[in-house]
Amino acid sequence: MSLITIKEAARLLKENDRFLILTHQSPDGDTLGSGFALFRILSKLGKKARVVCGDAIHKKYSFLYEGIAFEEFEPEFLVTVDVADPVLLGGKYSHLADKVDLNIDHHTSNRLFARKTLLEDSAATAELIYELAKELKVELDKDIAMAIYTGIATDTGCFKFSNTTAKSHLYAAELFDMGIDAAMINNLMFETKSKERLELERKAYEHLEYFFDGRCAVVSIFYDMIDGLGVDEGDLDGLASIPRQIEGVDVGVTIRERQPGIYKISVRTSDSLDASEICAKLGGGGHIRAAGCTVNGSYQQAKDMILSAIDGAMNSQSRF
Amino acid sequence: MSLITIKEAARLLKENDRFLILTHQSPDGDTLGSGFALFRILSKLGKKARVVCGDAIHKKYSFLYEGIAFEEFEPEFLVTVDVADPVLLGGKYSHLADKVDLNIDHHTSNRLFARKTLLEDSAATAELIYELAKELKVELDKDIAMAIYTGIATDTGCFKFSNTTAKSHLYAAELFDMGIDAAMINNLMFETKSKERLELERKAYEHLEYFFDGRCAVVSIFYDMIDGLGVDEGDLDGLASIPRQIEGVDVGVTIRERQPGIYKISVRTSDSLDASEICAKLGGGGHIRAAGCTVNGSYQQAKDMILSAIDGAMNSQSRF
Repeated sequence: MSLITIKEAARLLKENDRFLILTHQSPDGDTLGSGFALFRILSKLGKKARVVCGDAIHKKYSFLYEGIAFEEFEPEFLVTVDVADPVLLGGKYSHLADKVDLNIDHHTSNRLFARKTLLEDSAATAELIYELAKELKVELDKDIAMAIYTGIATDTGCFKFSNTTAKSHLYAAELFDMGIDAAMINNLMFETKSKERLELERKAYEHLEYFFDGRCAVVSIFYDMIDGLGVDEGDLDGLASIPRQIEGVDVGVTIRERQPGIYKISVRTSDSLDASEICAKLGGGGHIRAAGCTVNGSYQQAKDMILSAIDGAMNSQSRF
Repeated sequence: MSLITIKEAARLLKENDRFLILTHQSPDGDTLGSGFALFRILSKLGKKARVVCGDAIHKKYSFLYEGIAFEEFEPEFLVTVDVADPVLLGGKYSHLADKVDLNIDHHTSNRLFARKTLLEDSAATAELIYELAKELKVELDKDIAMAIYTGIATDTGCFKFSNTTAKSHLYAAELFDMGIDAAMINNLMFETKSKERLELERKAYEHLEYFFDGRCAVVSIFYDMIDGLGVDEGDLDGLASIPRQIEGVDVGVTIRERQPGIYKISVRTSDSLDASEICAKLGGGGHIRAAGCTVNGSYQQAKDMILSAIDGAMNSQSRF
């Protein structure tokens, strides 16, 4: 259960030969980009490796593993990438949670569940994979560069989020020089919406209300709006950022009916309010700009409760 | 009417003392970022300068000129930034169109209307301003760095568009090292929507139709939808990218009623179709991925004409 450096992690990878690489469930661009980049790096070193995921991989990521045929072999070394908590391995791989030899991750909330953990507060785990490749002196090819770029781009919202650093841009510049098709990746990751997602947005807009002189916007999503639409959890999560984006809105709230009498509330705030503090009043939690809670009761009760918590936060704003 | 190098442009700036900097009408982040960065660079060199624009500047750009008080003086040297064509100076400054001493621009379509033109095929004019600052050996401060970053970020869609290069990322990395608040800028530029824009999107979604087995999506905007909503041309232009973003859609079309009997059509395509070729059939033009045309007639006629042009393009697709 110890933290190790890039150099030590590189040595572990060099010393072993047959790797199982585990990504997290509900796989995103960073866990998959990191996983497949690491797979290709290990392959270049003449080692056997396989990438697995507890959930199905969305087809938009298929360019990451195009042309890869995994060999059958008995793994001797387990690596997890971008996995902050063993529960994120999902049910399918939960039996491996206490057998992980090396965890490569960038979440400061990492539970340190692996035998060794390479943990750096980077914008993306893919940045650490890139540093490992340099340490291992593996010459990166276009496929590896595309996978690393995918991780960095997706976790930074294409260099838009506040976790983006000079290093993220510097690495991107180096990856561009390796001939990556960044525009293709960005198009797939950021410029493509499913018809179902679009329909969901349209419906959500119909239930948009403003409170506190327009400083708070609330989007409500009822079960019968989602039922039969074929949208996934990712589509629903993505909706949470919409109300906060409206000009003049300091708090964006999404109230989603999970089942009758149970409402999942997502709160997104600008820099004048603390989302986690607001949600903590209703038994939830999260980060300063993004938090959530679950409320049992009627829709009206759920809405009244969160608005009351927001009202309280707005009236004690002097903290910021 | 000659093209000059960064070195020569830097010399011109050094040799003169009182500058009028002209940005283009409907000002965006690149023309404004470039203009105010150049203003601050010239000020650091002890020169007088003023930035003007033919149109009002949206308040989201106010951080670019915060704290600046322009002195009164008689300019001796006219510089345009990011102005590809003299008509883009707008009516207010059209009288200066043939008096421009130096034009700094990155549009390959530049009309070379100025006495001297510094023209490079960069992602943003702001990249050239950065190179000029380096050539002039001006030590960049945070304000200059913020202005340059704004230009690069807005013209690349936050490093998402295909015009982004290794250089864009490398410069961004250097600007980050100067302590810019990129997250604040990105929030203002990319994560904020006016209530009016949101309402417009909602209405546009109501008039969304699919054609050719979902390969073409058409959004229609009628005059009475826009009238009284207070949306500007920028909001309306932004809508054009929505239908193309839908999964499986190769051609996104926006049909906008400008006035009864006159329809402005915008076409956005994926890499399998040529938008400019489609619009050329209706007397319009543009680029391979984004083009437009104007059609006189009824709404149904306008729609039939563009769909017929798209049908033709889809059936002769072997070119790509």
